[in-house]
Amino acid sequence: MADKLCMVVSEGTFDKAYMPLIMGTTAAASGSEVHVFYTFFGTGLLKKVAKPKLPGMYRLFTGMFSKKMKKVGIPGHDEFMKQAMDMGVNFYACSTTMDLMGVKESDLKPGVKILGAASFLKLAADAKTTLFIG
Amino acid sequence: MADKLCMVVSEGTFDKAYMPLIMGTTAAASGSEVHVFYTFFGTGLLKKVAKPKLPGMYRLFTGMFSKKMKKVGIPGHDEFMKQAMDMGVNFYACSTTMDLMGVKESDLKPGVKILGAASFLKLAADAKTTLFIG
Amino acid sequence: MADKLCMVVSEGTFDKAYMPLIMGTTAAASGSEVHVFYTFFGTGLLKKVAKPKLPGMYRLFTGMFSKKMKKVGIPGHDEFMKQAMDMGVNFYACSTTMDLMGVKESDLKPGVKILGAASFLKLAADAKTTLFIG
Repeated sequence: MADKLCMVVSEGTFDKAYMPLIMGTTAAASGSEVHVFYTFFGTGLLKKVAKPKLPGMYRLFTGMFSKKMKKVGIPGHDEFMKQAMDMGVNFYACSTTMDLMGVKESDLKPGVKILGAASFLKLAADAKTTLFIG
Repeated sequence: MADKLCMVVSEGTFDKAYMPLIMGTTAAASGSEVHVFYTFFGTGLLKKVAKPKLPGMYRLFTGMFSKKMKKVGIPGHDEFMKQAMDMGVNFYACSTTMDLMGVKESDLKPGVKILGAASFLKLAADAKTTLFIG
Repeated sequence: MADKLCMVVSEGTFDKAYMPLIMGTTAAASGSEVHVFYTFFGTGLLKKVAKPKLPGMYRLFTGMFSKKMKKVGIPGHDEFMKQAMDMGVNFYACSTTMDLMGVKESDLKPGVKILGAASFLKLAADAKTTLFIG
């Protein structure tokens, strides 16, 4: 894996929520440094109350899909994010988005850091791989 | 072009379907190794019966748009994927998504390989460019 | 920052419109070369009359959101794109998409260049970071 993997998440749907967790934990398990920056609609995924849903017309199938995911060994979103943190994956909320959307530090899951876009881009400057996850 | 181009496709709409084909064939034509991994909604694009549509309200204009694309020399989705394979572009279905969505090996277009997310990330580890196509 | 940052934009919504501007100006401010290629639905963002809206059900909140963004110092879309150009960020319309969607050169904002996908990929070949912004 890349020595340093950076990801930007700007969507808040269920499918986009799992992408950085699946890729982040896989990379971290191989000894990679991982940084995930949540901006715009992605920021909601970092809230304590986050319950991401599949997009559009698939929304109603989220529960059924989650159950199937558990059967193949993929944990629920909250638990998966906690596992990723325990493996050293870094999660950041975009400070500007927090201002724009009225998200407070106390709304965020424990362990989530707050960062500006410029600081994140500096962090990503020497990453081997940077992905923009929708 | 990059010596090795890797792409992840997680959406199944018409616009997202063409992106890896346009970029993949361009890169392959320049001698690059190309690997495209389809996960979540992207996996449906690898099925024999795949007929991708434009997203949301544009859905109804897919046929009209396809015709215009043919006029400027862009082939239909099936034919374009076959051309890409003939040029050496590698297409992979995400094994976990196949389990989750009940996609069988016999549902996939001939030539499509099956791979896990971890194996794909290993493949991408030394790619010059890795793109996440929504 | 990366010495050379390339971005592809294939969506035309408000949130996706700002991403390359925020990242592009930040990178340019650090001395990076920046190239942004607009294709499919992204191409509309380069039109003189572009007024991007938030996606789906959020559409109606675009005006309110824009006002909040101005309060935290983020300019309107037109002005922001002009600022980015003044800082040296390069904007390209995909020539094939222009054909497909009937966009004329005279429809584009002043300063926008026209390029084919293959030429853009050549430009991106030696970029440190290439991002696909939905």
